[in-house]
Amino acid sequence: MRLYGYYRSSTSYRVRIGLNLKGFEYDQVAVNLKDGEQYSQSHAQVNPFRKVPVLEVDGVRRVQSLAILEWLDEVRVAPPFMPKDVEARRVCRELAYPIITEAQAPNNSAVLEYLRQEFNADGEAIKAWAQTWVDRVFSPLEVRLKAWDWVSQDLPFGAPTLFEIALIPQIYNAERFGAEMTRYPQLAAINAHCATLEAFARAHPDQQPDAPPA
Amino acid sequence: MRLYGYYRSSTSYRVRIGLNLKGFEYDQVAVNLKDGEQYSQSHAQVNPFRKVPVLEVDGVRRVQSLAILEWLDEVRVAPPFMPKDVEARRVCRELAYPIITEAQAPNNSAVLEYLRQEFNADGEAIKAWAQTWVDRVFSPLEVRLKAWDWVSQDLPFGAPTLFEIALIPQIYNAERFGAEMTRYPQLAAINAHCATLEAFARAHPDQQPDAPPA
Repeated sequence: MRLYGYYRSSTSYRVRIGLNLKGFEYDQVAVNLKDGEQYSQSHAQVNPFRKVPVLEVDGVRRVQSLAILEWLDEVRVAPPFMPKDVEARRVCRELAYPIITEAQAPNNSAVLEYLRQEFNADGEAIKAWAQTWVDRVFSPLEVRLKAWDWVSQDLPFGAPTLFEIALIPQIYNAERFGAEMTRYPQLAAINAHCATLEAFARAHPDQQPDAPPA
Repeated sequence: MRLYGYYRSSTSYRVRIGLNLKGFEYDQVAVNLKDGEQYSQSHAQVNPFRKVPVLEVDGVRRVQSLAILEWLDEVRVAPPFMPKDVEARRVCRELAYPIITEAQAPNNSAVLEYLRQEFNADGEAIKAWAQTWVDRVFSPLEVRLKAWDWVSQDLPFGAPTLFEIALIPQIYNAERFGAEMTRYPQLAAINAHCATLEAFARAHPDQQPDAPPA
């Protein structure tokens, strides 16, 4: 397996966690989003959506982080990315999808670039934008997590699921934009617990081959 | 079943198509997004994320359109929202998810409102914004659809899937913002075919109780 990604892309980070949880080995090809390498002609051949991550398996390139994660979950069922019970699955998705659609999507690099170019957004305006969408997801997540009867003290569903796979990279991203995680104590506790798990720790941006030296 | 939604919300439209395809009966409660009813205290009780759609079943409220659709697909398996074959499922998700995350998410009403308030975006700027995210998804979708060996002449997977459930409301939304669908001939043909299907036709915004009189 070969993963085209970028060390601090939150969607690449998601797929790294998923691959690690399932125990897959993979090579990495860095696509430098900061230098705009995703818009190159050569990357358009790899992915017509001009995005990372791309997972190449047996010469077939798979795109869209959520589609890749669900494919991984279908081809290697253990450990599962979702709880077994139908209602728990539904709640797990209700927690995961707002992170993917409402927090991550308006904060992806293409959107932020548009704000800088077309609306002359400066660093402070970008921070305010990013924190707005993070807070509109993280605050109600705290409400939902309080209402859910956690399976273990550490994790809502007892083991890492799609929710944590989506959450941890989004917290990393939120902190880059100055979000104050003490406002979200349950999410911060889940983040602290996941940092102790090898699959998450090894997927951290700082641990990637294309990360700048510390 | 009771669906809290808004006639021209593309995420409500998705869930209406899904309910119709599965043959569920449901009442509708209108939440007027134009008047900001989603931000009311009473709606925060219904959904802490202050969004539509919300599907209430036996007193339990389910949120997030994609989570609702997947729950519907689990509790009533026929007709399925996804192809059976693992690779076809993967491609179906690769086509559906960019619509949900990269086209719909930056164009939802909360994001557009932020652009108007904080960046003084006028009607033309909003149109340019909306068309940008639609084109960055619809153009590569045309590339992907050309590369996929369609199961039938009308639909890529032979029957409606999560892809069409995501696509048709996004086309409706794109046309509101002036997108020119002749640029996307395969998507336009899928749209024309779906308009002939009762589950899609009955879910159209113009057919909803809260739509303004024609």
